[in-house]
Amino acid sequence: MTEQVTTGTDVNRMRELNALSIVRALRGNPPSTVTELATRTGLSRPGTDVIVQGLVADGWLTVVEPDGSSIVGRPARRYRFNAGTGHVVGVDVGAHKVLAMLADLDGTVAATSRLPVDPGADPAARLAVVDAAVDECMAAAGLSPGDVWAISVGVTGPVDASGRTALFTPLPGWASVSLAEHLATRFSCPVQVENDCKLAALAERWQGVARDADDIVYLLAGMRIGAGLIIDGTLRRGYGGAAGEIGALPAVRWLTAPSHLQSCAPPGIDTDDAAAWVFNAARSGDKTARTAVRRFTRDLAVGTAALVLALDPQVVVLGGGFSRSADLMLDQLARELGRTCLRVPEIRASTLGAESVALGALRLAIDEVDARLFETGLPAPVAPRA
Amino acid sequence: MTEQVTTGTDVNRMRELNALSIVRALRGNPPSTVTELATRTGLSRPGTDVIVQGLVADGWLTVVEPDGSSIVGRPARRYRFNAGTGHVVGVDVGAHKVLAMLADLDGTVAATSRLPVDPGADPAARLAVVDAAVDECMAAAGLSPGDVWAISVGVTGPVDASGRTALFTPLPGWASVSLAEHLATRFSCPVQVENDCKLAALAERWQGVARDADDIVYLLAGMRIGAGLIIDGTLRRGYGGAAGEIGALPAVRWLTAPSHLQSCAPPGIDTDDAAAWVFNAARSGDKTARTAVRRFTRDLAVGTAALVLALDPQVVVLGGGFSRSADLMLDQLARELGRTCLRVPEIRASTLGAESVALGALRLAIDEVDARLFETGLPAPVAPRA
Repeated sequence: MTEQVTTGTDVNRMRELNALSIVRALRGNPPSTVTELATRTGLSRPGTDVIVQGLVADGWLTVVEPDGSSIVGRPARRYRFNAGTGHVVGVDVGAHKVLAMLADLDGTVAATSRLPVDPGADPAARLAVVDAAVDECMAAAGLSPGDVWAISVGVTGPVDASGRTALFTPLPGWASVSLAEHLATRFSCPVQVENDCKLAALAERWQGVARDADDIVYLLAGMRIGAGLIIDGTLRRGYGGAAGEIGALPAVRWLTAPSHLQSCAPPGIDTDDAAAWVFNAARSGDKTARTAVRRFTRDLAVGTAALVLALDPQVVVLGGGFSRSADLMLDQLARELGRTCLRVPEIRASTLGAESVALGALRLAIDEVDARLFETGLPAPVAPRA
Repeated sequence: MTEQVTTGTDVNRMRELNALSIVRALRGNPPSTVTELATRTGLSRPGTDVIVQGLVADGWLTVVEPDGSSIVGRPARRYRFNAGTGHVVGVDVGAHKVLAMLADLDGTVAATSRLPVDPGADPAARLAVVDAAVDECMAAAGLSPGDVWAISVGVTGPVDASGRTALFTPLPGWASVSLAEHLATRFSCPVQVENDCKLAALAERWQGVARDADDIVYLLAGMRIGAGLIIDGTLRRGYGGAAGEIGALPAVRWLTAPSHLQSCAPPGIDTDDAAAWVFNAARSGDKTARTAVRRFTRDLAVGTAALVLALDPQVVVLGGGFSRSADLMLDQLARELGRTCLRVPEIRASTLGAESVALGALRLAIDEVDARLFETGLPAPVAPRA
């Protein structure tokens, strides 16, 4: 144990690891001085200074000049992680719209584009709208494809290892579409495709009502009902990407639950507007509408109880389009869960609204960037390759 | 980055980390030479030799003398992790019996004790049987309480953070019993209490039919039906320890499923023998018995489908007392899952039989020892404190 052989490679590797530990110490934290960073990383102060200057030169860190408010002596410079050194794109591909968001590595949104798409559009037409939405974001932010470090896209239906929704998708002709391959023709960065409910669950833990929770059942409640699961702080995909698809079980009544709302709306009203009409009528005291909402909530509760009993989460988040009417459902949902569940979790209404899937896609893309950075070390900041 | 200050504490800490990396390199692996260990850990050969001799002196490693079969030169000594340096105890506290097992740190069982207990026994009587079973194991192995490094106990019902089954337990008066406090009066090592289905799931992944899987739904099928979940390679407890309790939902029919078997058995037969009678009759071609098994399996499948749809596991393990009759159920279970699940996992019958819960308890206890060793460094081998 007295002998220590140190090679040139060792020294380079150690310098890289030390640089990584400094970037980690700043990622997601307030700006810090060299002295603070030395304390936090356990490196020497002079050594920390050398690394920090190198990271500034590479573009990983930026200098925060002192504001002159220090009373004693010359105030120290602070450094912060330069989140603007890279960007990520999150996309929500829905039946009626495509929502794209572009953000820096801290998730600060720089541009958003929401474009309508015909529910009956064929895959080529829908992919063209995806491209247009992403292009709009890049144009608005003055960026080109090479500036994008990761892209994540949310779609309805369980997503398999190849990024396809082969098991099930409500989008016409979409089962064999590979969004990843399509986007790879224009972007060289990593592209991930993920189920929309799973991404929305990520968003709630990141910026939504479940920031304090590690065990979350997220409900995407709309004319389709789905679920995303976060267990022990990690999004759970399942072995084949189909975790959370409890709605496929007839006994839990999620497949038929929305029909209570639809059958209560006046004839002629569009399917997508029917639910809003019923929720409004219920809020105004319409008895038939209140019954329809109660029946919907009762059926929503059966599948929710199944997930709660299976997973014992801390929090259930009621999200999706119907979360705007959560006031009509939350109390009853809690009562129904109280009847069947051994331990009733907190139930909270999502506040992220229509952006939750795209926001979750941003989070997944940032996670991908971080994973690659912290795995492979810190070269000069350029987009990772797929 | 040129400056490196190395203090005495740093050197001690580095020696400890290097010792840890050598123990890790041997834990669960075949015996190795110093040269092999140096290669695997990246340490120098002379440095590795010094540490290995220290670990032998401490009792962490033992020497495997060469068998003289080497053709060229003097064959090298090998070293192996000395699993016998510590022991763990796993206990299964059931309604009718207490099963205790004592094993070394590799899980090699040194002693087993199975004692009957009256289903109506009060907590004090049941705890006395637990003590007796553990004592029998220690006596058989020639060990005393101070030689036991960790104890895990499996009980029926969800186990909360305090180690109690306050939410539900079928054992009379057991809801407020703290096994951990009881055992702490005699053992100073860590004591864990866990749900029996969860422990059985651990056992299947350790030594059973799910060794290759990271995503497992384990079914404990008997006159009570329960489930244990392993997701991404880790046992999932849930926020309040109640994960897997899908059987509490009336819609999944687990509560009533065993009644199909019970009502088919001849009058006067003991509840616990009724199922065995029906399975035997079904195997002999009795039509009524076959119908009863089919109805039981159909209801078992509803709750199983709920767990499969919620979690999308790679494997479903049919375990518990009824797994001896898996041949009568597996095909039908697969067919029923095929009807409702988006992706049907493999279904396998447990082969661990009545020992699965106690084996899982051993695994949990060994994990506890490993976690503490690898967290706190390697002093001389003594039992960790609770």
